[in-house]
Amino acid sequence: MSRDRRNILFIMCDQLRWDYLGCSGHPRLRTPHIDALAARGVLFSRAYCQSPICGSSRMSFYTGRYVDSHGAAWNNFPLKVGELTLGDHLRPLGLRTALVGKTHMAADVEGMARLGIDPASAIGVRVAECGFDPYERDDGLHGRGPAGKYDPREPRYNAWLQAQGYDGDNPWDDWANAAADDEGNLLSGWLLHNSTRPARVKAEHSETPYMTRRALDFIDEAGADSWCLHLSYIKPHWPCIAPAPYHAMYSAADVLPAVRNEAERRDPHPLYREFMALRVSRAFSREAVRAAVIPAYMGLVAQIDDAIGVLIDGLRSRGLLDSTLIVFTSDHGDYLGDHWLGEKDLFHDPSVRIPLIVVDPSGAADATRGTSCEALVESIDLAPTFVEYAGGQAPGHILEGRSLLSWLRGRPPGRWREAAISEYDYSMTPAAEALGVAPLDARAFMVCDRRWKFVYAEGMRPMLFDLAADPQELADLGADPATAGERERLLGLLNRWARRQSQRTTVADAQIEARRGGSESKGILIGYWDETELPAGNLPDKWRRAATRDAA
Amino acid sequence: MSRDRRNILFIMCDQLRWDYLGCSGHPRLRTPHIDALAARGVLFSRAYCQSPICGSSRMSFYTGRYVDSHGAAWNNFPLKVGELTLGDHLRPLGLRTALVGKTHMAADVEGMARLGIDPASAIGVRVAECGFDPYERDDGLHGRGPAGKYDPREPRYNAWLQAQGYDGDNPWDDWANAAADDEGNLLSGWLLHNSTRPARVKAEHSETPYMTRRALDFIDEAGADSWCLHLSYIKPHWPCIAPAPYHAMYSAADVLPAVRNEAERRDPHPLYREFMALRVSRAFSREAVRAAVIPAYMGLVAQIDDAIGVLIDGLRSRGLLDSTLIVFTSDHGDYLGDHWLGEKDLFHDPSVRIPLIVVDPSGAADATRGTSCEALVESIDLAPTFVEYAGGQAPGHILEGRSLLSWLRGRPPGRWREAAISEYDYSMTPAAEALGVAPLDARAFMVCDRRWKFVYAEGMRPMLFDLAADPQELADLGADPATAGERERLLGLLNRWARRQSQRTTVADAQIEARRGGSESKGILIGYWDETELPAGNLPDKWRRAATRDAA
Repeated sequence: MSRDRRNILFIMCDQLRWDYLGCSGHPRLRTPHIDALAARGVLFSRAYCQSPICGSSRMSFYTGRYVDSHGAAWNNFPLKVGELTLGDHLRPLGLRTALVGKTHMAADVEGMARLGIDPASAIGVRVAECGFDPYERDDGLHGRGPAGKYDPREPRYNAWLQAQGYDGDNPWDDWANAAADDEGNLLSGWLLHNSTRPARVKAEHSETPYMTRRALDFIDEAGADSWCLHLSYIKPHWPCIAPAPYHAMYSAADVLPAVRNEAERRDPHPLYREFMALRVSRAFSREAVRAAVIPAYMGLVAQIDDAIGVLIDGLRSRGLLDSTLIVFTSDHGDYLGDHWLGEKDLFHDPSVRIPLIVVDPSGAADATRGTSCEALVESIDLAPTFVEYAGGQAPGHILEGRSLLSWLRGRPPGRWREAAISEYDYSMTPAAEALGVAPLDARAFMVCDRRWKFVYAEGMRPMLFDLAADPQELADLGADPATAGERERLLGLLNRWARRQSQRTTVADAQIEARRGGSESKGILIGYWDETELPAGNLPDKWRRAATRDAA
Repeated sequence: MSRDRRNILFIMCDQLRWDYLGCSGHPRLRTPHIDALAARGVLFSRAYCQSPICGSSRMSFYTGRYVDSHGAAWNNFPLKVGELTLGDHLRPLGLRTALVGKTHMAADVEGMARLGIDPASAIGVRVAECGFDPYERDDGLHGRGPAGKYDPREPRYNAWLQAQGYDGDNPWDDWANAAADDEGNLLSGWLLHNSTRPARVKAEHSETPYMTRRALDFIDEAGADSWCLHLSYIKPHWPCIAPAPYHAMYSAADVLPAVRNEAERRDPHPLYREFMALRVSRAFSREAVRAAVIPAYMGLVAQIDDAIGVLIDGLRSRGLLDSTLIVFTSDHGDYLGDHWLGEKDLFHDPSVRIPLIVVDPSGAADATRGTSCEALVESIDLAPTFVEYAGGQAPGHILEGRSLLSWLRGRPPGRWREAAISEYDYSMTPAAEALGVAPLDARAFMVCDRRWKFVYAEGMRPMLFDLAADPQELADLGADPATAGERERLLGLLNRWARRQSQRTTVADAQIEARRGGSESKGILIGYWDETELPAGNLPDKWRRAATRDAA
């Protein structure tokens, strides 16, 4: 029975580096359950997000389109009302498409009002939730400050914590993301020096297990329906504080040395220089900060790994393992001090490269289980993968990625993309102000092929890394005369990409081929001198007499 | 009183060449009323349409965005439901925004259904009519063939003709666009050899005067309201047949020699070659065809000129001349046999260059009346011109053109565009099939600066014309080694344009500048080591004790 079912469990972490997993080679971090996923599926070892920032990256995952195409270029830039999302593609194929956790979606409220769409209607909710039915929407950022709440939504999680006896009006802030000192004073998880302490919340009450249980709740509620569930964890995103015992699972001794050198700070690319100057970058350039924060980050990953174990057991016990496509990925990475940077935003691997494991339960995928695929993969490849897995045909005039099923099923496509693209709009950042760049011009692009990574910000010299000779991306060859040819070639790839057609989304290629020449049979006759030139059968009777006369 | 009013009369012809007006230098064609408009306003002598085909060009006029941005890349490719149009920009400024005549708009019916928009609702109608209230929508193409009607809408004009006594179920086809031979046999205006004859309809009953009266009807109905009226004539677009006396106003003796030479047919650019091979191009390469059709084309322009006289008198008699911005333009031109081509579609001036006259009634524009402006103007410049004239501020993150008011009011902007861009999607044409180009790749671009015109079709060598040495565009320098530098420079301009941000339409630049750093005041604290680093006033009380302790 379950053979007929087609479920998709689309698991996303937030800010999880591609290389902070056992299966991707981290020497200290243990992730047995995620490694087991990789053993059952394919590890895509060269996957990139479309933009190294939560909101824009996610809108690309959910629309299957480049940021340049959907326009939600930064956090909380609303995704325009007309954009199609996973739900629009999967519901017609019979999949309930639901969300548990974070999307960072900002609704196009003005657009909805302009089009008379009631935000409370089923359509309105989906438009406002990038096509998901929000089983439990929680973006996992409930900080509050003098100007109020960052996220106006009151999370169910807070009420649930209160029901478990955690006090205060925002237990997310005071318990799940705070510690206590020996006298019981509140120590905020927002402050990096507190990352060494355990969160005040019990592990089983923290966000990761909570969202995991909510995912299983949805699966039980869905019953016999097919579904696509987006389980979207906020962790290991900051506030970087883990509950016991995860807070103590790793120590400073487990922290890998920062990937950086002094040469990077000498005459850096202007945009890179501005990001190195940020508070968070200066903080993570201090060893004390890395030693305090990275073990907590690793503990939060370990907690996610345990949650994956619970999820897989849950699928197995429900008999769903053989009908469920499982994806494990992240929206982007985290510099954690590499390259003198904190956070994400730029295009070094720690930021732009993402973990990606796909488990295809079908027999056709048995041959590739436990293998690794080095193809250049973009996050927009997941949407067409889901559509194809669900039995549909990916609309190539809307979805800009390519299905990964051919890789999973041991039929590598003859041609694949030459290079992966990622984009970043820095108009909201201090860099735009410092560099005096107007919002519309504050754009940077990455073009990464099998050997080279090229970074281009409008109006500045490019950056270039030779990934073969310099896999750690420490030597910027962007001004090296010897590599001018590569830069020209890679800029050419960027330009060809930029010239692509991305907005002709209302007419499919097949429709175009079918419609060619159709207007003539509807009486649009262009360039005919007289009746005798008209195609047979396209001469209205009323003209016939004149035609006959002419012929006579 | 009328001083407070802000009306816009946006007159568009269809397929009217830039150089088929007295004021633009045609040696035989007399257009005194249009010339009088030019004398009262500014003639923009280097204006280009965004795409040399009706539908796409018009969607750019109406959205103020490049075809690459709005995606309606060919006739009847629906404009996606979310795109903002003139009505969205002008109604909030108090202007009734209405249509009389043609738009060639195809509604995004699927998108409307997806978003639950009722096509019969006020919002639905505007979404389906590119933002206009359709006072009288008539695309002016009511041909019928074995496969039915090209345009499913039954035009009011047909009913009106029947009321005037014209018989048949489609008097548009049988009377307004047909002639009769001496025995009264029907001779279709679709057939070029009939263009020398008068249409069967009386001049006062033909489309141009009819639509002109409908425009005045709207103006009377609007009363004291401010309005933007798009009066959109189908003529001199084919079927190319004029009513008496216009059919005989010009003769073969008035037809200018075709601009073409044999060199153009030797080793032409592949795309150009395919368009030269079209039936309509082969037809207009015959002198007999030009001699029959062009006098009728000129007669139809003369009839429009008379209509402009009626309109201006109508505005004057209603006291509206001093409150009405008047625009006279066309959606694109017509090769009429120049360069061995018929119709439009490619980027020689006869096709892509458009007539553009703007009359600004305000006193600030007195100094420029009767002058000509050689700035590189794009059709998308009209939307921001209208918004600014109506007292609004053009949203630069949505409207990609620039207001022309600074030119009209004698304050030339310091910086203006370096080059004009035009685009053409040939995926629907036989050229795509003949060249074996996939629909998404069937794109061509024009980049035209003050001296050079560069044409680039993906996958082919470019075309290049030196407009200074070769204003008639007869010598394609696209393969000339001597001009390689110019081609590289112009391709660079195209690529910079292609890399522009065009889809971030939900957030304005000013909002971005205002929002910078805003999340910190909402409790999002990134990169702070401890309480002592927190900005003053951003330390929650609950943390204070710990902070004091640390400080102690």
